Amino acid sequence: MDTSGRVTRHFQEELEQLKTQLLVMAGAAEEQVHAAVLSLVDRNHNLAERVLGGDGPINQFHLELDERCFQLLALHQPMATDLRVVVSAVKINSDLERIGDFAVNVAEASLRYLRHPAVKPLIDIPKMADVAQGMLRDALNAYVQQDTVLAEAVLDRDDTLDGLKDQVFRELLSFMLSNPTVTEPALELILISRHLERIGDHATNIAEEAIFIVSGLDVRHHAREGAVSDDR
Amino acid sequence: MDTSGRVTRHFQEELEQLKTQLLVMAGAAEEQVHAAVLSLVDRNHNLAERVLGGDGPINQFHLELDERCFQLLALHQPMATDLRVVVSAVKINSDLERIGDFAVNVAEASLRYLRHPAVKPLIDIPKMADVAQGMLRDALNAYVQQDTVLAEAVLDRDDTLDGLKDQVFRELLSFMLSNPTVTEPALELILISRHLERIGDHATNIAEEAIFIVSGLDVRHHAREGAVSDDR
Repeated sequence: MDTSGRVTRHFQEELEQLKTQLLVMAGAAEEQVHAAVLSLVDRNHNLAERVLGGDGPINQFHLELDERCFQLLALHQPMATDLRVVVSAVKINSDLERIGDFAVNVAEASLRYLRHPAVKPLIDIPKMADVAQGMLRDALNAYVQQDTVLAEAVLDRDDTLDGLKDQVFRELLSFMLSNPTVTEPALELILISRHLERIGDHATNIAEEAIFIVSGLDVRHHAREGAVSDDR
Repeated sequence: MDTSGRVTRHFQEELEQLKTQLLVMAGAAEEQVHAAVLSLVDRNHNLAERVLGGDGPINQFHLELDERCFQLLALHQPMATDLRVVVSAVKINSDLERIGDFAVNVAEASLRYLRHPAVKPLIDIPKMADVAQGMLRDALNAYVQQDTVLAEAVLDRDDTLDGLKDQVFRELLSFMLSNPTVTEPALELILISRHLERIGDHATNIAEEAIFIVSGLDVRHHAREGAVSDDR
């Protein structure tokens, strides 16, 4: 059905639009993560509030992209790699929407944290945010450009993120033990580090999809086995 | 292309098999969640270890179901509701796989918790597990039976789960403040409650898919707005 040059070209254009929209959505999600962590570091209430309000556009993207994928499948009935690209887009869309939710969770925790004096200068949490944002950006580019080398590098960085998360946990636990008055704000920081870890997990999912599309190689449950053992 | 009675009947059989396999996978995931929380309540190391080893079959289901969905789309090019059922299966499959991961996270936290004496008799955490498991079961049944009433009831229960999570947090925080020696195990319990909350989130996603298939009504970002405000 889909063999005329005109229809095929039209489909390829639609596919490019889909990828562009995913990139824009990922940019919005990354911006939300960045702002949420910046609100924490700079003790900026207004910025945290802005993140809470900034989830709407991402949710709107989520609905539109889901519908766009559905229409592409229904109208063009793509095959082989094109089909994989569209099915992956459905999953990546869900991952990006969840990342937007986690950014909101970070901003909410940031607002609660700001009711207390600072527990300590924040170093590892901004570092986690940087790693997670970089993973997200590279994972999306790997998907769009079908670049498995870039995607593999994302998988590697998930261990860095896990290491930082464990470091944050140990350090804050020792703070709480030596000074119980910081227990509540320290807990918020631990929860924030968990949200950032999950963002990395979703970026990892996206990178795995990118690898799958190109190589047909399903790396999902091999890549993960090693990382699971001391995962809090 | 897909209009002969034989091919259509074959597709409907494949669709039934897909649903059955999702139900089996959901049953396995629910069993993992149950065992992980039971290992905590009964202080049963062996059971926790068994959960760590029990993730393999769920990961296997995940890969197989993804491939099955892909084949259904490639070979049968389903339309309208059938297409929605298959695209939803792709997403539900991801949700179930994540639920399996969270069960492993709970079992890992359980093992760390068991290095310490019990902080308190556990009441709300097993309750959270019951609610989350029930949500998962009903969400899957709602999808398979295309039952929107059942799906709506799942969405309502997400607030119950959030309420329990907040209660767990407040109670354990006050334990830590009055007795800092319980800080580390109490933290594990808080993290466990977060994993159970996420399991409920994924069950909610599945219920939303069920509603979408039947009614074409996208409830996703309406249902969530109200629940987000005090989400830690």
